[in-house]
Amino acid sequence: MIFPIFFTFFLLLSSSHASVQDFCVADYKAPDGPAGYSCKKPAKVTVNDFVYSGLGIAGNTTNIIKAAVTPAFAAQFPGVNGLGISLARLDLGPGGVIPFHTHPGASEVLLVVQGIIIAGFVASDNTPYLRTLKKGDIMVFPQGLLHFQVNGGGTPALAFPSFSSPSPGLQILDFALFKNDLATELIAQTTFLDAAQIKKLKGVLGGTN
Amino acid sequence: MIFPIFFTFFLLLSSSHASVQDFCVADYKAPDGPAGYSCKKPAKVTVNDFVYSGLGIAGNTTNIIKAAVTPAFAAQFPGVNGLGISLARLDLGPGGVIPFHTHPGASEVLLVVQGIIIAGFVASDNTPYLRTLKKGDIMVFPQGLLHFQVNGGGTPALAFPSFSSPSPGLQILDFALFKNDLATELIAQTTFLDAAQIKKLKGVLGGTN
Amino acid sequence: MIFPIFFTFFLLLSSSHASVQDFCVADYKAPDGPAGYSCKKPAKVTVNDFVYSGLGIAGNTTNIIKAAVTPAFAAQFPGVNGLGISLARLDLGPGGVIPFHTHPGASEVLLVVQGIIIAGFVASDNTPYLRTLKKGDIMVFPQGLLHFQVNGGGTPALAFPSFSSPSPGLQILDFALFKNDLATELIAQTTFLDAAQIKKLKGVLGGTN
Amino acid sequence: MIFPIFFTFFLLLSSSHASVQDFCVADYKAPDGPAGYSCKKPAKVTVNDFVYSGLGIAGNTTNIIKAAVTPAFAAQFPGVNGLGISLARLDLGPGGVIPFHTHPGASEVLLVVQGIIIAGFVASDNTPYLRTLKKGDIMVFPQGLLHFQVNGGGTPALAFPSFSSPSPGLQILDFALFKNDLATELIAQTTFLDAAQIKKLKGVLGGTN
Amino acid sequence: MIFPIFFTFFLLLSSSHASVQDFCVADYKAPDGPAGYSCKKPAKVTVNDFVYSGLGIAGNTTNIIKAAVTPAFAAQFPGVNGLGISLARLDLGPGGVIPFHTHPGASEVLLVVQGIIIAGFVASDNTPYLRTLKKGDIMVFPQGLLHFQVNGGGTPALAFPSFSSPSPGLQILDFALFKNDLATELIAQTTFLDAAQIKKLKGVLGGTN
Amino acid sequence: MIFPIFFTFFLLLSSSHASVQDFCVADYKAPDGPAGYSCKKPAKVTVNDFVYSGLGIAGNTTNIIKAAVTPAFAAQFPGVNGLGISLARLDLGPGGVIPFHTHPGASEVLLVVQGIIIAGFVASDNTPYLRTLKKGDIMVFPQGLLHFQVNGGGTPALAFPSFSSPSPGLQILDFALFKNDLATELIAQTTFLDAAQIKKLKGVLGGTN
Repeated sequence: MIFPIFFTFFLLLSSSHASVQDFCVADYKAPDGPAGYSCKKPAKVTVNDFVYSGLGIAGNTTNIIKAAVTPAFAAQFPGVNGLGISLARLDLGPGGVIPFHTHPGASEVLLVVQGIIIAGFVASDNTPYLRTLKKGDIMVFPQGLLHFQVNGGGTPALAFPSFSSPSPGLQILDFALFKNDLATELIAQTTFLDAAQIKKLKGVLGGTN
Repeated sequence: MIFPIFFTFFLLLSSSHASVQDFCVADYKAPDGPAGYSCKKPAKVTVNDFVYSGLGIAGNTTNIIKAAVTPAFAAQFPGVNGLGISLARLDLGPGGVIPFHTHPGASEVLLVVQGIIIAGFVASDNTPYLRTLKKGDIMVFPQGLLHFQVNGGGTPALAFPSFSSPSPGLQILDFALFKNDLATELIAQTTFLDAAQIKKLKGVLGGTN
Repeated sequence: MIFPIFFTFFLLLSSSHASVQDFCVADYKAPDGPAGYSCKKPAKVTVNDFVYSGLGIAGNTTNIIKAAVTPAFAAQFPGVNGLGISLARLDLGPGGVIPFHTHPGASEVLLVVQGIIIAGFVASDNTPYLRTLKKGDIMVFPQGLLHFQVNGGGTPALAFPSFSSPSPGLQILDFALFKNDLATELIAQTTFLDAAQIKKLKGVLGGTN
Repeated sequence: MIFPIFFTFFLLLSSSHASVQDFCVADYKAPDGPAGYSCKKPAKVTVNDFVYSGLGIAGNTTNIIKAAVTPAFAAQFPGVNGLGISLARLDLGPGGVIPFHTHPGASEVLLVVQGIIIAGFVASDNTPYLRTLKKGDIMVFPQGLLHFQVNGGGTPALAFPSFSSPSPGLQILDFALFKNDLATELIAQTTFLDAAQIKKLKGVLGGTN
Repeated sequence: MIFPIFFTFFLLLSSSHASVQDFCVADYKAPDGPAGYSCKKPAKVTVNDFVYSGLGIAGNTTNIIKAAVTPAFAAQFPGVNGLGISLARLDLGPGGVIPFHTHPGASEVLLVVQGIIIAGFVASDNTPYLRTLKKGDIMVFPQGLLHFQVNGGGTPALAFPSFSSPSPGLQILDFALFKNDLATELIAQTTFLDAAQIKKLKGVLGGTN
Repeated sequence: MIFPIFFTFFLLLSSSHASVQDFCVADYKAPDGPAGYSCKKPAKVTVNDFVYSGLGIAGNTTNIIKAAVTPAFAAQFPGVNGLGISLARLDLGPGGVIPFHTHPGASEVLLVVQGIIIAGFVASDNTPYLRTLKKGDIMVFPQGLLHFQVNGGGTPALAFPSFSSPSPGLQILDFALFKNDLATELIAQTTFLDAAQIKKLKGVLGGTN
């Protein structure tokens, strides 16, 4: 088979309009919708939109929970917009804890890269699923269920959660209950917790009422 | 476990951009897309967006079908935008009828709250599924299939349909056929109805040709 | 247009195999999968599969929370299997409470049919959205977020939640934390609650450890 | 770069279990579910599962509507199971008509290959969209909306509809209303048609009551 | 049943806002998102948006592959936006070839309308599925898998592929590898092809480096 | 608020049938379908189903590409079945290469944990997106597009790809073309490669014809 070096090739898909395909890099300035952010104009997309280096930096664990979560969701990493996936970085200092939380819109798979992590989730029938994870282990937390991670060793632990959505959301139980102005009495009524306990945690977390 | 009362907590998810998560309250002034309306800016969202009181008001059943449908779809109720669900209110006066219709984009579950309703749908194999429903009964009408509701008692009936989409659509058979300018001959050809019958219903419903 | 009374019509869609279309009534005896239960054989489907009367019966509210939830999910109501929707009934006696909970797999729209209900949810950014609902009001609780309902009047209240999934799931916060054998110390570490508080609620709810 | 001729290559994805990927050819003997038929064992799949020749044969248009539809849905063509697409063949003799119908679960794009076809659909707001199509034209009928096709020339017409689902369903209006045992009075009440008209069409189509 | 000729009918669904339902004709000037283009304002939609005549014109096969593909994707055919389906036209002159390619976002069903086409795809386990197709045959190519079409007769062939997405995408293997500035050495390393072979094809297809 | 220590709590969701919710751990012995494997009976599910340790073991890179991929897809890791996510491990020895490949059913985000990796993908318009990634960097490869990874340093590299599907699939270009019995002439015709080049690679990879 011999080819001429130069020739006019057929123009395949030379559409008259910018096409919706391959990817939809987030344009944070245009309106967003239920499926995600609007797409950047193709001419403005570069490889930088598909690479994120923020997870290479350790989070600051000098805080009350001795832990930090660094997200690479669609809001931070424009290239995953519309693609059904995102990541984050989880740093757990010695004694560090990511307290009970849910991701309302995604399942999670946690990859342990360093240290020992005790992780668990609770199913709808209240059964807890608990495991001590070591380097290289992965554990899945099904969508929307309460789960937690705790440093299970005496040294810093590092893990990377992956999510089945570019915008998985994150609702931390303590923050949802105590870091706002929900009335103590209403919280008591809807959690069965004692008022004194609620007021104590509101004090710690900055809630009022 | 002892907490200091004040401390700097870790800033979790303090994203640099408004995030797409939790919900997408409809912004009726921005462009809409295949997945629904654009999202209101988070700062403008209030609890009013998540509550709708329009279904508390009885529809006016002084009309030819002695019935009324009041929708709470995404077009009326901005909080359901993108969330895969919506509701409506169905008032059936004595003798009231919601004639054969379909919802092109959703399945429906009808909840009877007052009175007696005869409801039915027809499957693709032409089998009818009919039932007389009383207060507290629910019946499901699978997506896109022809169905109807008729007041089966001598008193007003009230029901609330739920839909598996924030924009289920509604195509009423008689309106689709007779309440427009489709030529009588074309309707006759594509429905097998007699021209006289078609012209009569066009007259009733305001169609022409 | 004249038709002969009897004729051999064209056999449309006389497929050689049972077809997957219109609906998929749950067959509880066959394997289930990520999309729901297997489908009942078409020949065994009757109108009873599409109607459910269990929501017509008031739940028993003589219990600690003075409340009851009666589900009509795919596990109870075979007709909604695969159709993206389900319902439930919510009875709240005077002083009744449905404590903080989530539905991991669905958004909810609550319809108040009788009485006064104080309802609320907390968003991922910890903002609470609270409202006192009266008869006819509807309120949406976006997927996976913590929410609650409380009887806001002195008389029984009745409401019907609709869900955007045939199997929305239900995770009640107190049950998930205290109605199992999770170690008190681990709960304290992952919720910041005092051990005494945890042990008290384990006692109430039947948890151990 | 030089390669040894023989070597032991790495075994990529030599999973211990049959994998769910690439395709899911329908196994008509196993249970089906909301997402479609079960998958044939990989070892039994052949190229024949991916090819269908039934659309090459003209349908018999010697019938009352002078038309025939030949489906290649998942029930006939196992290779499209789970893949979100299917086809059919449409033969319209001179004067042939595919009367008003819907596909409850799919949008359709009709491709005209021979002859002249007048096609139309009616939107939810009752607006009709009508067009005379010639060879090479395509027309889209959005999901669930009433539409029809009529031979618009004096010669046979041939078209191929494509669907956005492997099991689009097909509900023909006249069959749904008149080709079963729905009571004439109930049909009259829910369609506004005259009883005489209903009985006439029941007679033609084989309905009773 | 008697109707007055004129009356005020109930206003069903007279929503206060333009509704998202039935269809979402592409507005190419507004932002697009992961689910497709924004929707044209309902008042501007006409039947022309739902009909496309571009596939009625034979593609120019006077080129190196003696073949042409004419797309009717959402970028060309606004009516299919958001509807999960699109079409294209495939012209194969004698000796014509559509070389190995994938559609990253859709499965394809190919309908042969004229001539003989040899088509094939390769599964993830490297099994090839090959078939010689004649007029009326259809063949499915599951999503994302490498496939090709070759004119298998001495006369022009014509076929129409349907896709399970309005924007299926198209990645032609040779173009992806050789019609850009990827370094020859890097291509050699990631394809095992000889540098001379790569340079030869870069020359033919207009690539550099 | 005072609670009695023992009481009969309301039985919430004590469904009469095993419910489809929370998760669907793969049962490899039951039929699979388009949405994934059947679900294990709830009583047989343990925490082991949600944890996978196989990615903790380095793959054997003593092979022609000096690389290894270890999957934790639904076929290996039953807990991710139906949850829209999976992981894998990628070992690249010095000089190691994962040649051009696609995942037909998923987008990928690659996380570099050790070493230097040069990664790239090619878009549908043939634009290559290339980047040298270091520890902590992540890069997204949109669904279905050709991409590759190469060790860019002199030391072993380790990375973990996450996928937006529990069964992403993997089609390696060279294997698809050369590791089977596709005729050399047909490959030449559909890839423009020289027959000698094809035969050489068939020899290396174990293909015939």
